[in-house]
Amino acid sequence: MVLHLLFIIFFFPYFPLSKSHPLDPLTPSELTIIQQTIKTSNLFSPTPLTFHYIGLADIDKHVLLSWLSNTSNSPPPRRAFVIARSGHQTHELHVDISTKSIISNTIHTGSSFPLLSLEEQIAASNLPFNYTPFMNSIKKRGLKSSEVVCASSTVGWFGEVKKSKRLVKILCFATGDTVNLYARPLEGISIVVDLDLMEILDYTDRFVVPVPVARGTDYRSKKQKRSFGPRGKPVTVVQPEGKGFSIDGHSISWANWKFHLSYDVRAGAVISLASVQEHDNELHRLVLYKGFMSELFVPYQDPAKEWYFRTFFDAGEYGFGLLAASLQPLTDCPVNAEFLDGYYATQNGSLLMIKNVFCVFERYSGDSAWRHTEHEIPGKIITEVRPEISLVARMVAAVGNYDYVIDWEFKTSGSIKFMVTLTGVLEMKGTSYTHVKQVEKDIDLHGSLLAKNTIGVNHDHFLTYYLDLDIDGYNNSFVKAKMKTIKITDGSSPRKSYWTLVKEIAETEADARIKLEAEPAEYLVVNTNKKTKIGNDVGYRFINHGAMAISLLSDDDYPQIRAGYTKKQLWVTAYNMSEKWAAGLYADQSRGDDTINIWSQRNRVIKNKDIVVWYTLGFHHTPYQEDYPLMPSLSGGFELRPSNFFETNPLIKTMPFNNTHWPKRTNNP
Amino acid sequence: MVLHLLFIIFFFPYFPLSKSHPLDPLTPSELTIIQQTIKTSNLFSPTPLTFHYIGLADIDKHVLLSWLSNTSNSPPPRRAFVIARSGHQTHELHVDISTKSIISNTIHTGSSFPLLSLEEQIAASNLPFNYTPFMNSIKKRGLKSSEVVCASSTVGWFGEVKKSKRLVKILCFATGDTVNLYARPLEGISIVVDLDLMEILDYTDRFVVPVPVARGTDYRSKKQKRSFGPRGKPVTVVQPEGKGFSIDGHSISWANWKFHLSYDVRAGAVISLASVQEHDNELHRLVLYKGFMSELFVPYQDPAKEWYFRTFFDAGEYGFGLLAASLQPLTDCPVNAEFLDGYYATQNGSLLMIKNVFCVFERYSGDSAWRHTEHEIPGKIITEVRPEISLVARMVAAVGNYDYVIDWEFKTSGSIKFMVTLTGVLEMKGTSYTHVKQVEKDIDLHGSLLAKNTIGVNHDHFLTYYLDLDIDGYNNSFVKAKMKTIKITDGSSPRKSYWTLVKEIAETEADARIKLEAEPAEYLVVNTNKKTKIGNDVGYRFINHGAMAISLLSDDDYPQIRAGYTKKQLWVTAYNMSEKWAAGLYADQSRGDDTINIWSQRNRVIKNKDIVVWYTLGFHHTPYQEDYPLMPSLSGGFELRPSNFFETNPLIKTMPFNNTHWPKRTNNP
Repeated sequence: MVLHLLFIIFFFPYFPLSKSHPLDPLTPSELTIIQQTIKTSNLFSPTPLTFHYIGLADIDKHVLLSWLSNTSNSPPPRRAFVIARSGHQTHELHVDISTKSIISNTIHTGSSFPLLSLEEQIAASNLPFNYTPFMNSIKKRGLKSSEVVCASSTVGWFGEVKKSKRLVKILCFATGDTVNLYARPLEGISIVVDLDLMEILDYTDRFVVPVPVARGTDYRSKKQKRSFGPRGKPVTVVQPEGKGFSIDGHSISWANWKFHLSYDVRAGAVISLASVQEHDNELHRLVLYKGFMSELFVPYQDPAKEWYFRTFFDAGEYGFGLLAASLQPLTDCPVNAEFLDGYYATQNGSLLMIKNVFCVFERYSGDSAWRHTEHEIPGKIITEVRPEISLVARMVAAVGNYDYVIDWEFKTSGSIKFMVTLTGVLEMKGTSYTHVKQVEKDIDLHGSLLAKNTIGVNHDHFLTYYLDLDIDGYNNSFVKAKMKTIKITDGSSPRKSYWTLVKEIAETEADARIKLEAEPAEYLVVNTNKKTKIGNDVGYRFINHGAMAISLLSDDDYPQIRAGYTKKQLWVTAYNMSEKWAAGLYADQSRGDDTINIWSQRNRVIKNKDIVVWYTLGFHHTPYQEDYPLMPSLSGGFELRPSNFFETNPLIKTMPFNNTHWPKRTNNP
Repeated sequence: MVLHLLFIIFFFPYFPLSKSHPLDPLTPSELTIIQQTIKTSNLFSPTPLTFHYIGLADIDKHVLLSWLSNTSNSPPPRRAFVIARSGHQTHELHVDISTKSIISNTIHTGSSFPLLSLEEQIAASNLPFNYTPFMNSIKKRGLKSSEVVCASSTVGWFGEVKKSKRLVKILCFATGDTVNLYARPLEGISIVVDLDLMEILDYTDRFVVPVPVARGTDYRSKKQKRSFGPRGKPVTVVQPEGKGFSIDGHSISWANWKFHLSYDVRAGAVISLASVQEHDNELHRLVLYKGFMSELFVPYQDPAKEWYFRTFFDAGEYGFGLLAASLQPLTDCPVNAEFLDGYYATQNGSLLMIKNVFCVFERYSGDSAWRHTEHEIPGKIITEVRPEISLVARMVAAVGNYDYVIDWEFKTSGSIKFMVTLTGVLEMKGTSYTHVKQVEKDIDLHGSLLAKNTIGVNHDHFLTYYLDLDIDGYNNSFVKAKMKTIKITDGSSPRKSYWTLVKEIAETEADARIKLEAEPAEYLVVNTNKKTKIGNDVGYRFINHGAMAISLLSDDDYPQIRAGYTKKQLWVTAYNMSEKWAAGLYADQSRGDDTINIWSQRNRVIKNKDIVVWYTLGFHHTPYQEDYPLMPSLSGGFELRPSNFFETNPLIKTMPFNNTHWPKRTNNP
């Protein structure tokens, strides 16, 4: 995937004066120091050096928690974790920012590779235009090179034994009358590029099928003509008393919640230290120590030479944060949103800003947080309703054709709702078919005929959240509360059965590999060291809101080996600072040796330990014509809901908005 | 459950002049005519007569569709279906309204009974207060009768062979300092009332446990003291160009949708003739001929004498429409909502109105209907986003302790989203336990200890939708599109597997009894007689958004026999005018002989026929302390999404709201 530069940053004369936090993302000046520290060291020169990841180094949890308990002490030192390539080798570096020194420099010896940089992807995508066989292929398809666009695709791993080169494949498309290039694939062509040499290693043009005309696929409003599509009347929100949240640097407070929102070039949004308060207590109790989108695995389901390798790891190969879209005020986020920017370093270390990488807003959908009408008391009708206002932190990753809207929604009830919305454009395949009746065997489509010469290829989306929960403290346990049917055979009741909850605390990692659909159960993370007044373990439970698909690939298939954790939605592992990335620290051409399921095989004790929950949302996507030329939003998610965490419903004492001066009704004619 | 009268209607001098529709609910004047027609007939006098259901009689589908094809013809005659009791018999009557005549009068001979009337429930709930043993029981518990409230509970059926009497049980509670009576149950008492004789048949007081003090359980805002609960700042919506929908009588038009919204005392909201338009076509194409909440089964999971029978059928026993709450403007529905009222007849035929029984509003949550950021075209960054505005039709049924918010959400994408939100108060059980450590065997709680002397009892909610889909025409088919893993063993690809879609059209009802979690599949209703231009069958598919629980009762348990359909989420039956109510036309003391699963045993042909889909949303509810004293909203639902119904995404040509004069930013300081 090729991305172009968003905002090039030359100069930072001024920063807003907000209190910095040890978890804040690397600032532009810090990124500059890191880059200069490495470049001016004599470790790499004169070999050229490219940066593939620069992010805040993880802080030892005990150190951070200790600092949090007394923030007047000096904070942990600011350090960066860097992955760089030089001389065909991958280096892992730790850099101390205040001392401008390299603390460690090790060479990664595995067969897999770090994030691709945007710059090398752009360079690789430009190679075909100076490659005669490709220019001939374009001509053969009746196209001019000015209307052809190429993008890079990772190559995956398919059982090669010896150490791989850093390769990408190049996928090409036509534009012409439409900017919807994915609707106009150049089918039949395979191009392999060696990224280190930056040259085409292999080229084939197996067959020609028509490049779809793709009429009407340009989705830009300025290209639309009457009759226009349906819409309701515009609706917007107003907050007569102003916003209810405050952002201090990257620390956000709202209602009974506090959390830290950071940007990482690989993960995108990182939520830390999410903690919630009981109404009668100043104390914020920790819920989520750290959470982020760890990986996004998107395997396509077509074994053809031009398609089999499309088994993307969007976070680990491309960078979910690197591909974050600049959010548009008023459309991506409502008028009452505030925005944060993100900064990252390019391959050569220069700085870029993604303007509006996150938005934060108070959401009101017209729903209630709770209600009750009581009719049973003679002479009274009682109705009490509290409208639901929640806080959303949002980012969008535009990973080539697809757009993923990632929402972290905090509720006054204590719930955190994790929602993913899929939209954007399908990855489409060219075909000679122009009508379904020409198709002899459905299976050969590997998808659906969406338009003339256009197949929407079957695929999946598996989005895996890293959730280091610290429910009211460091040591937690994972509980499977299974619903079991009890038969009554002794005539002790007119009933013959009922169900009851049988709770099992997971002792080791083997007890916490969960297929959600396998049995009726609730899954909780509890703190057995903290009890409510009447003696229940404090906890949170998971509630599913759709998107429960698991991978259907065979266990021995290479993409499945690389994403071995996608056959279960929920895993719990013992906290380990190095286990952050579901498909491995090095996902490009990974071989499945550094994945959740591999870590889980160690079968560590997880009872009353610091534990991490991995939750995978899955979508099987069989395209339909409505997904063409661009798909309407489709959402799924899950909720972390307090379950004996509070003594009672924390919203009972929440007052309605009686005294608010609502806008004049003239706004609502 | 006892309800008190909402709005007594004496006089109807004036009706708004809107075009009436054959599917409109019975008007107050029609209800009066029906009542008078029956009362003045000499069929029943001098025996007293009580009304248990009066609703619009179903109109033959061919007759209605024929009228719809030319509405200048005279509409089908207005007729009512009435269930009345007289002389210990249940009568089914059809009344023609214009001729004021009884067309048919048959006696129901089965062993089950119609909806309970509110008036008889109130009368039964008052009986204990004139019953000395009960007054002694109150005294024994240290209560005054002025602080005790009783309500009725249906009795279910537990294998009795001979024909039953019409019975209810009476459940009593204390109020005192709280209006939250469910938090203060009088445990140990069983009271059985004969409704026809209106007298107590059986009374036992087995044991005394403390009536919970239930401090802090009054949820009314006026009872709250500092410190108050959390809330964000108020948010409201404005529509600078006014509302986008119009309501003509009960016919609603909005964006690309038209539908009819009616009130029924049993089902609540009834959506009919929901049809959607393509942007380049005037024609509205039918999607949903009729849809409504057919039944709501709520089995509690405690076999004790005072609890085993609590296995409620809220629609068939109590009336989901009868128990509809008057929606509160600004809290139950946003400021831009319009409201409709509902009318029904009481037991003696007099009229009642439920003010604001429905609201209709355009929803905006700050989300997008679609978006895309395109980075791949050199020199361009394209971002297009369309905000999501949808239309919601809402009702709330306050079934005693529980409140169900039922949303029908129409999207411009062509989707209909069916969402249920559970809130209100748990049905609680008294206990002598005041701390978890006193509990020897968890299983004996049949729930969770929520507060001192208070157990939240385990239970389920199964909400079953009747969906008579007529996708673009009368004859439809049900398709199971199963995802099957194909192994590649011939070395034809570096991949070893992929999944493909294997579509099966259900031939008969036996092919369409679906457990959603059993296998990966998509379920569609298609019209094989209508194709898109490139030849796909037009259709809609179901997408789950949580709430997938199925019943865990043993098959031979009586409540399970009565709700035999609750072990599968999805059934498809051949359309049959008499098959409307999932648990039978007569649900009170039903014996499971008139339920979806029984009808399905006929195994009728459903391929290319008029078919009905039954979709059950299920929640297992194991209470937690946060659900006490009143539970925060919990939602689940599903979506009917167009799947080759349109030629392309109908929203591509939807224009943004660029020219809208948004409110001044001063409203958002």
